[in-house]
Amino acid sequence: MKKIEARKLKGFADYSGTTMSLRSQIMEEVRRAASEAGFIALQTPALEYAEVLLGEGGETDKQVFMWEDNGGRSVALRYDLTVPFARFVAENGNLQMPYKRYQIGDVWRAEKPQKGRFREFCQCDFDIIGADTLSADFEVILAIMKVLTRLNKGTFTMTLGHRDVLGGLLKVFLPDVFQSPNGESACLIVIDKLDKIGPEKVVNELSLISGATREGAQDLLALLQKRDGEGSDLAAIKASLVSDEVATAALGRLESLLDLVNAIDMPLSVKLVADLKIARGLAYYTGVVFETTLDSLPSFGSVSSGGRYDQLTQRFVDRELPGVGGSIGLDRLVAAFEELGVLENTKRAGVFVVLASQGLESWAFQAAEFFRAQGVLCEVSLKPSKLAKQFALADKMNRAYAMVIGEEENSSQTVTLKDLSSGEQHSKLSLKDALKLLKPEL
Amino acid sequence: MKKIEARKLKGFADYSGTTMSLRSQIMEEVRRAASEAGFIALQTPALEYAEVLLGEGGETDKQVFMWEDNGGRSVALRYDLTVPFARFVAENGNLQMPYKRYQIGDVWRAEKPQKGRFREFCQCDFDIIGADTLSADFEVILAIMKVLTRLNKGTFTMTLGHRDVLGGLLKVFLPDVFQSPNGESACLIVIDKLDKIGPEKVVNELSLISGATREGAQDLLALLQKRDGEGSDLAAIKASLVSDEVATAALGRLESLLDLVNAIDMPLSVKLVADLKIARGLAYYTGVVFETTLDSLPSFGSVSSGGRYDQLTQRFVDRELPGVGGSIGLDRLVAAFEELGVLENTKRAGVFVVLASQGLESWAFQAAEFFRAQGVLCEVSLKPSKLAKQFALADKMNRAYAMVIGEEENSSQTVTLKDLSSGEQHSKLSLKDALKLLKPEL
Repeated sequence: MKKIEARKLKGFADYSGTTMSLRSQIMEEVRRAASEAGFIALQTPALEYAEVLLGEGGETDKQVFMWEDNGGRSVALRYDLTVPFARFVAENGNLQMPYKRYQIGDVWRAEKPQKGRFREFCQCDFDIIGADTLSADFEVILAIMKVLTRLNKGTFTMTLGHRDVLGGLLKVFLPDVFQSPNGESACLIVIDKLDKIGPEKVVNELSLISGATREGAQDLLALLQKRDGEGSDLAAIKASLVSDEVATAALGRLESLLDLVNAIDMPLSVKLVADLKIARGLAYYTGVVFETTLDSLPSFGSVSSGGRYDQLTQRFVDRELPGVGGSIGLDRLVAAFEELGVLENTKRAGVFVVLASQGLESWAFQAAEFFRAQGVLCEVSLKPSKLAKQFALADKMNRAYAMVIGEEENSSQTVTLKDLSSGEQHSKLSLKDALKLLKPEL
Repeated sequence: MKKIEARKLKGFADYSGTTMSLRSQIMEEVRRAASEAGFIALQTPALEYAEVLLGEGGETDKQVFMWEDNGGRSVALRYDLTVPFARFVAENGNLQMPYKRYQIGDVWRAEKPQKGRFREFCQCDFDIIGADTLSADFEVILAIMKVLTRLNKGTFTMTLGHRDVLGGLLKVFLPDVFQSPNGESACLIVIDKLDKIGPEKVVNELSLISGATREGAQDLLALLQKRDGEGSDLAAIKASLVSDEVATAALGRLESLLDLVNAIDMPLSVKLVADLKIARGLAYYTGVVFETTLDSLPSFGSVSSGGRYDQLTQRFVDRELPGVGGSIGLDRLVAAFEELGVLENTKRAGVFVVLASQGLESWAFQAAEFFRAQGVLCEVSLKPSKLAKQFALADKMNRAYAMVIGEEENSSQTVTLKDLSSGEQHSKLSLKDALKLLKPEL
């Protein structure tokens, strides 16, 4: 029989072992932060009508997995969780507002696979719609900060910008780009690449946009890169925006958000700083935008980002539904932690049940279930083999104890426990006495 | 601007509210049953090379979502978690055997949508490879039984068959169908439809298979439907198989498994009974097979099924890797529970933080985070509005308490708590005193 090659698609990965444990831990912290703040769990389909997904993602549209299904429908795999969420909100007119939801789910993008970038990756999103307030922005950012803090694997910097401030600055320094309909978004896409390609190339690329001047681009970049302490020089930016009410109000909102985060009296391993050059690639953002990098691995890029999108549902319905959302890129974060080598090695834990002969399965499982019900990991030997081989397997599996079931244990309804670190053995214990050893805290 | 219709694809669903809560609860019980027995979490991609997935599923092949990606690769969405698992095992030659994994994940099948049948649905799989033993079969079945029991939403019957016993019976009653290469599997596919189309139609369809006789089909059906108590009449079946060693051994294995389950001394709301007419549609099963129905809704069909597949990895590699697995159809189970009306209504819980005026956000969030850190659901009002409106929202959200933050509470760093059931109010409590009310058990 001709064999089929057992292989995965490029950009796709299997997860198990310590990587999977860390993924599960992050998901657990996301669920915790969400439920303590009243975010409701939501799940939407992986597949949507292509027209529902396309047209909002700017650069992302090209990366969508899309095809015609057997029924002749143009379908696509979601490339984020935000656009399907907007579809959900538009489809369900009776949601109690403000509506807070979180979603953990895989998304797909046919981008070039590289370190920390996959074609299938998991995102953890927090979103609030129906409230265009500072509190809503803060609630989303706080939830993300708590998740990252509780992982206890490193410190982060979250940089905060605002689309309207950046738009205001473009009006000041590159006013003529607004004469063409896509001029502003073309500038944003170029500015968004600053960290990747550096200021000189950004100036070059901006100068090529219709209506832009090299001088204006240089002045803009100089201002965007000016620092006051760790963040953007907000006083200098404010001075440039003096005649622009919208941009000045946006800057005020951003400053209030910084104040609110700085005032909260809790240990956070995420520092929020203003950085007005943050643009974000996705076209749907309209207000604050943010990105987050690991302090010890900034080159890895953003592991969590988001922003305010006040018009997203308007593609579907006329109702005005302001929204704000943030996403933790679970697989990028895991890849970054792996790069840093902060994944924990598994410690000895649980019990491996060794069977001295066949026919003892019934008592072995009976005993195992007693301990499992108490939350003790209890693995039963599944293949008849010599005792020494079973002990070796118990050791290899990193179990803390071997529990031997022989004829005597079977007839006396007891177990024999061997501590695999110390070698100490306790013969023919009742299940209750064995539990005292396995879980002294009970 | 032309609006895009906010709609989902047929056969796809959004999940939130009580449905999502139940889904999360089932997943949590799957994780618990898995981790206490040492099943390792695994995640494989949703997308695979089409050739990896096709050719094993029999009837299922036609339902695979498949297309050519931008790189010209023939790709497909997984239709189950078992075949990708076989690919994973074949690709990773160094796994410690026996290898026990569980996986929770969505799968996709382009089948006709109907009640309880979706085109995207979540499966929870337990599999053990590298051990062709009774214990391995039992461990998988026990894990599923524990999950279903702990949900505490109904009783179940798990019917147990064996491919080799059914094969043996076919050799006795319809010996000539084995003259054509697909004769046996054609018979299995027909017998598998017994519950749906009834015995007469099965006899008719079997008679049409090359080599089959109407008389043989009738005798076979009569034997398969004969009952001894609740299960198949194993004595009568054994008598028919007397000269067939393989089938007799298979029947012995099935009886031992029944004995092992019946001997386990723990409360289980799943009853295991022999039913040798169980065939299962998927082509890869080779040993025991099982299906599970809700006792109060048998017409809904199987909510959990599985079996032994000793040759699955042989499509990829020559190594012999016996396996056994079982799957809980999470979305079918949820749909069945919904049909039965056993989903719980949400009870009053948590706190809604009412803000008397603007500018109090900082203390409001500070207080909220104090309670959240203790596991109290604490939702902060996100939109400035009149007090009465905020109280009404708190009530609508089914919160147990409203926590009022006004100027006085802000300046004295206190909170005012109002019990939304009794109307009782406790003014200006310290955070610690408020916590005593919210979590008396602390």
